[in-house]
Amino acid sequence: MARGLLIVVSGPAGSGKGSVLGRVFEKSSDFVYSVSATTRDPRPGEVDGVQYHFKTKEEFERLISEDAVVEHTFYCGNYYGTLRPVIEKDLQEGRNVVLEIEVDGAMQIKKKFPEAVLILVVPPDFATLEARLRGRGTNTEEDILNRLARSKEELAIFDKYDYLIVNEDNMLDSAADKFIGIIESEKLSTIHNPDFYNKFYNE
Amino acid sequence: MARGLLIVVSGPAGSGKGSVLGRVFEKSSDFVYSVSATTRDPRPGEVDGVQYHFKTKEEFERLISEDAVVEHTFYCGNYYGTLRPVIEKDLQEGRNVVLEIEVDGAMQIKKKFPEAVLILVVPPDFATLEARLRGRGTNTEEDILNRLARSKEELAIFDKYDYLIVNEDNMLDSAADKFIGIIESEKLSTIHNPDFYNKFYNE
Repeated sequence: MARGLLIVVSGPAGSGKGSVLGRVFEKSSDFVYSVSATTRDPRPGEVDGVQYHFKTKEEFERLISEDAVVEHTFYCGNYYGTLRPVIEKDLQEGRNVVLEIEVDGAMQIKKKFPEAVLILVVPPDFATLEARLRGRGTNTEEDILNRLARSKEELAIFDKYDYLIVNEDNMLDSAADKFIGIIESEKLSTIHNPDFYNKFYNE
Repeated sequence: MARGLLIVVSGPAGSGKGSVLGRVFEKSSDFVYSVSATTRDPRPGEVDGVQYHFKTKEEFERLISEDAVVEHTFYCGNYYGTLRPVIEKDLQEGRNVVLEIEVDGAMQIKKKFPEAVLILVVPPDFATLEARLRGRGTNTEEDILNRLARSKEELAIFDKYDYLIVNEDNMLDSAADKFIGIIESEKLSTIHNPDFYNKFYNE
């Protein structure tokens, strides 16, 4: 059984990365979402292991100290992160594991898993990004300006990612196909076939 | 106009790399072969600039000294190589340029063009490789053993290439589709979109 690929997906608010991933999961059963861990309280209806793996702060910090947390962030008084055993099981069973995380977490993953595939979902241009943020109608002007400023910081390090998927309006199928194509292509990379020679001559 | 990609294709005798490329060119007009230069004499019917760019030994050596030869080899008393102006024109005009060359030349290209995409076409396994070499019927036993030994040297450095395409018997379409998919995916890589950020915020 070939090991699955670890895939990190980031993108600024307004990139539509969630919609792209939704379409990818509809189209292909080769991918699984990684369920994050958090120390925030479960909301009504949330189930441990489904929306999140719920941990106490003490548990989370112990897991960090044991190197069992492969990336994490501290936000509004709570930890959020990815547990190593959670992703290892899926990877070993051949599933491609998708982490939808922000830039900081993505860089932590790249450091620990140099073979991870980092994908940045981006809008086609700045005007479209702004139009999407304004189109939501629920953001204040301050919110919108903050998000636009944040996008600039996020996109400034685009070259730390491996691939860019431009998510144009009404082109979700095309974006999802690009995502799936990237992973099919990565599976042919020599990095992801380190035992090729030994298998070719010894099996 | 986006610059085309420089693609190096190698593979041991019996890998079927020529057939895979033939099918790629049938399926897509996004690719052009690079016409090599050589100092050997034209054979009857060969036209300068079509089969080869024919050069004298003095011309070829002058071109090497001017760094106008991006890879070359010396074989049976003659030079064979790739001229920089030949590939630059196609790359600048947005065409993907395919060099079908051996391992040594591939390594020279990788050094001069770190962004080049190196693809190794391989048979599914050793038994198939041997069967294909024997199946030609025109090779002596010594030839076959030499080629098998040479394949081992070539494949030992498979990890200097970026991608492996396994060319199974009667699966030429699949191999060609993989080739085209790899290049489509590479076009989405951040390495091949170095001006993304500037275009996003300044245009």
